[in-house]
Amino acid sequence: MANVAFIGLGNMGGPMAANLVKAGHSVTVFDLVEAAMDAVVAQGAKKSSSALEALASADTVITMLPAGKHVAGLYLGDEGLIAKANPGTVFLDCSTIDADTARKVGAAAAERGLEMLDSPVSGGVKAAQAGTLAFMCGGTAAGFEKGKLVLEGMGKNIFHAGDHGAGQIAKICNNMLLAIHMVGTAEALQLGANNGLDPKVLSEIMLKSSGRNWSLEVYNPYPGVMETAPASNDYKPGFMVQLMLKDLGLAMENSLSTQSSVPMGALARSLYASFSAKGNATRDFSAILEMFQGE
Amino acid sequence: MANVAFIGLGNMGGPMAANLVKAGHSVTVFDLVEAAMDAVVAQGAKKSSSALEALASADTVITMLPAGKHVAGLYLGDEGLIAKANPGTVFLDCSTIDADTARKVGAAAAERGLEMLDSPVSGGVKAAQAGTLAFMCGGTAAGFEKGKLVLEGMGKNIFHAGDHGAGQIAKICNNMLLAIHMVGTAEALQLGANNGLDPKVLSEIMLKSSGRNWSLEVYNPYPGVMETAPASNDYKPGFMVQLMLKDLGLAMENSLSTQSSVPMGALARSLYASFSAKGNATRDFSAILEMFQGE
Amino acid sequence: MANVAFIGLGNMGGPMAANLVKAGHSVTVFDLVEAAMDAVVAQGAKKSSSALEALASADTVITMLPAGKHVAGLYLGDEGLIAKANPGTVFLDCSTIDADTARKVGAAAAERGLEMLDSPVSGGVKAAQAGTLAFMCGGTAAGFEKGKLVLEGMGKNIFHAGDHGAGQIAKICNNMLLAIHMVGTAEALQLGANNGLDPKVLSEIMLKSSGRNWSLEVYNPYPGVMETAPASNDYKPGFMVQLMLKDLGLAMENSLSTQSSVPMGALARSLYASFSAKGNATRDFSAILEMFQGE
Amino acid sequence: MANVAFIGLGNMGGPMAANLVKAGHSVTVFDLVEAAMDAVVAQGAKKSSSALEALASADTVITMLPAGKHVAGLYLGDEGLIAKANPGTVFLDCSTIDADTARKVGAAAAERGLEMLDSPVSGGVKAAQAGTLAFMCGGTAAGFEKGKLVLEGMGKNIFHAGDHGAGQIAKICNNMLLAIHMVGTAEALQLGANNGLDPKVLSEIMLKSSGRNWSLEVYNPYPGVMETAPASNDYKPGFMVQLMLKDLGLAMENSLSTQSSVPMGALARSLYASFSAKGNATRDFSAILEMFQGE
Repeated sequence: MANVAFIGLGNMGGPMAANLVKAGHSVTVFDLVEAAMDAVVAQGAKKSSSALEALASADTVITMLPAGKHVAGLYLGDEGLIAKANPGTVFLDCSTIDADTARKVGAAAAERGLEMLDSPVSGGVKAAQAGTLAFMCGGTAAGFEKGKLVLEGMGKNIFHAGDHGAGQIAKICNNMLLAIHMVGTAEALQLGANNGLDPKVLSEIMLKSSGRNWSLEVYNPYPGVMETAPASNDYKPGFMVQLMLKDLGLAMENSLSTQSSVPMGALARSLYASFSAKGNATRDFSAILEMFQGE
Repeated sequence: MANVAFIGLGNMGGPMAANLVKAGHSVTVFDLVEAAMDAVVAQGAKKSSSALEALASADTVITMLPAGKHVAGLYLGDEGLIAKANPGTVFLDCSTIDADTARKVGAAAAERGLEMLDSPVSGGVKAAQAGTLAFMCGGTAAGFEKGKLVLEGMGKNIFHAGDHGAGQIAKICNNMLLAIHMVGTAEALQLGANNGLDPKVLSEIMLKSSGRNWSLEVYNPYPGVMETAPASNDYKPGFMVQLMLKDLGLAMENSLSTQSSVPMGALARSLYASFSAKGNATRDFSAILEMFQGE
Repeated sequence: MANVAFIGLGNMGGPMAANLVKAGHSVTVFDLVEAAMDAVVAQGAKKSSSALEALASADTVITMLPAGKHVAGLYLGDEGLIAKANPGTVFLDCSTIDADTARKVGAAAAERGLEMLDSPVSGGVKAAQAGTLAFMCGGTAAGFEKGKLVLEGMGKNIFHAGDHGAGQIAKICNNMLLAIHMVGTAEALQLGANNGLDPKVLSEIMLKSSGRNWSLEVYNPYPGVMETAPASNDYKPGFMVQLMLKDLGLAMENSLSTQSSVPMGALARSLYASFSAKGNATRDFSAILEMFQGE
Repeated sequence: MANVAFIGLGNMGGPMAANLVKAGHSVTVFDLVEAAMDAVVAQGAKKSSSALEALASADTVITMLPAGKHVAGLYLGDEGLIAKANPGTVFLDCSTIDADTARKVGAAAAERGLEMLDSPVSGGVKAAQAGTLAFMCGGTAAGFEKGKLVLEGMGKNIFHAGDHGAGQIAKICNNMLLAIHMVGTAEALQLGANNGLDPKVLSEIMLKSSGRNWSLEVYNPYPGVMETAPASNDYKPGFMVQLMLKDLGLAMENSLSTQSSVPMGALARSLYASFSAKGNATRDFSAILEMFQGE
């Protein structure tokens, strides 16, 4: 079992840390919000007064932070986690951030001879609580073997996507594709409905045909087709529009730096940006169907 | 067993008629191309000298024609199939045509008390030969029950999408969605490749994640990822760009008449139109990936 | 001066016919709505009880109808205008319709040795009243020279675009381009505003730079920038969203039949379709700016 | 007359500096490429051995650099231009860079009490040589009045767009709009040509109608329509595809940070990215028309 320092206990980080405790790891936590720490401590974690204090006794460090600048700020520099870590420490940054920062921080760790994985998660708060997250990891094969042992305490599918940054790339590629087929599914179902077809019947047909995709299978955006989907629950999230917009933003940012052409992804981002700005930021991302409906 | 008149023996119609013979139906065929008839006659069908001659002894009529104008021309008018059919005849139009024509012809049949199904197919030449086509049907429930018995001789999945025209709508909705996730999958895989990821690894990750879709599962557009896919065979079709362009055209036409908003579908059509015009019309539709690659 | 039969006296046709009277032509009108005729008769036109009656004494026929099917219905067939017209009659169809119908009707007139121009108008109700419409004409050079003499009574710019149908094509190309730069101008101005720039200042800069276009020059979509523009008058039309949507529909229809790639035009149409369905059909088309604004 | 330090003598910077000499200013230049300096020195400028040496005697500093990181690197820090400048120095950064960097550098200058304008140019190499560039400036009103006196030596239209960064924003808004109407104009002209219209006639009609825009007026993308346009000269630039792609990248980057929806701009960028990757990076940006043509 590992000695884990877990930094960043938000909606996702809190239940993830708690699952590590349940899995038998020794977990020391840090967050700027005291109450966030208390909740995990109540389940068996140890509290610390700073990230560096948590780091001191750890062989594995997990971070779950909002954006690249926070990750760079915490890991880099003379007082950063990398400079201060014990030899042999493994870093697992589970934040969803830009690939460039992930590569930079991963390279800095490698320079000190430390393994680091960018390992963004897929699955949302429910999966974090249930311990069924997916992790898409970037780093060395050796680092992946080590990190996997700990990540397994929080999730089911642990993928090795490639070198430093590849975890972030895999996530943005996946989520861009998700956005595209969600919007496409919404368009197709509404086109059918505008012609008098029953969206439930049309969904069943397309599910058994070449239109099949994850949105149709487990997350149907048309209200009433799938009882458990956010669409049948007033589009209560689920996965919020603003989070999809963030991920599409990371995908676009990467497409700019690699001069990639992503016309569908770019269109999806602008549609979500328009939809988000009209008061829909905190609704489920499948609500984009409403863009194609009449009043 | 049914007495079937089968009209239109192209790449699809030929093997479909042959499968009906094998299934034990009595099949009389007609096509303007003599050789096309001979091929099916060699497998046990009877030849006729005109569509009306084939119609004379039939209780079931199947048509497989290029476009709405051919269907209207054959079925409607004083000398059309509907006017000349025996009472109780069931019409199965397997052509992929515009929904408006399908509705018009279906209504004309209903006026004479005849059942008619627009029942476009999904699956391509291989599925036509193997008898594993999917049929998306529009018509009455009673008509569907009757027609299904014959369609089962040519395919596996027989869907009842709704009233007259609903089969055509289901097909264009499905194929529009297929085009969208094919282009999206191509964009996502190329974005990953531009970042140094192995498209095979990225495909495996997305297949187990929310990016999952039919294109990724059975028709990966990146060369070398899936041995049996057209992408690994120089994009030899498969499903040709020009056929996808035709289906997207039908979807757009319908979006115009129903004033539907289909931004992703419309973008997919223009990308395919641009790609097709550059000498790619007869290549497999997954070759669209090349639009996102460098030279 | 010509003996004109004018058929179709809607918002546009009414003032157009009245201007012909003022220009000194002898004008006989017909419309299904009695009151529409009365209004023009009050200004000096003669009333007739049917299109054919109006035709009887005419050397020039002008029609202003909603769609291709009305034009085909009126002109073609044994009882149509073409069959019944006096030798030497010139037809001017000012309706905005699909090019295919325009070509078909033009060809039918030619077969009887009659000149016909598809001559859709540009400019709206105000220009119809002021006699400052633009006409984009398709037909022979000889027909154009004859028709122009009458069209000059209703407008200022009379263009000869090419053969039968070319007038309609010129109009849909122009209006598709108008939609594209209107949406683009809206995006650009809102992007500037989101960065704190004054839309008026930004408009002035772009007007003197390479972003310059008609929307910026005479129809600025940002409220308050241009006093006389619909944007500064609650987006009261002007040119209604639903009319732009109709024209974009005609452009898309033509792009399908010519297998043309029009990604920007297709995206503009779907954006307008989405916007129109949200209760904006009768507002001015420059209101599309709201799609890019927050609440 | 001013004592100008001019740093960055590329294709644009070289002729700009030479024009300042002609205008009577005293100009000291610096560039890493010796030959670039020699060319301007031959026209009357003084050479210096470093940016700081050039700065020493200057009251006005002009920089023309490739990207934000070069600007930040040169201006900021203890050894940067801002720290080392004489009191009263005016900075004119004519580079086209991201607005965030422009704001940051502008703020740093303001902190030392110095005026700074981000003043990106519009117009290309020919305008740089002819002294007819346009400048879009961001900074204080006082700074603008001072900077304008020097900028007038290099260009004709000098605009004050707003505060620090506003010059960059005005430029990306303008160039995004330019890309949109260039692609739109190409689509519209090709749609017309696909219908048999003469692109020259269609261009003339749209120029006098609501489709009018800068691309149609002075830069027609259809070969043969406008003798002096790059389209009639094998698309020899002019303004290269890769430069338009860079500007669209800056516009997209800004749309991400401001959460702006720019569907047309985003689509234009992906079309240009796709086109550029196919060996067209150094051709004129109006060559995008070829994307809509057959072989």
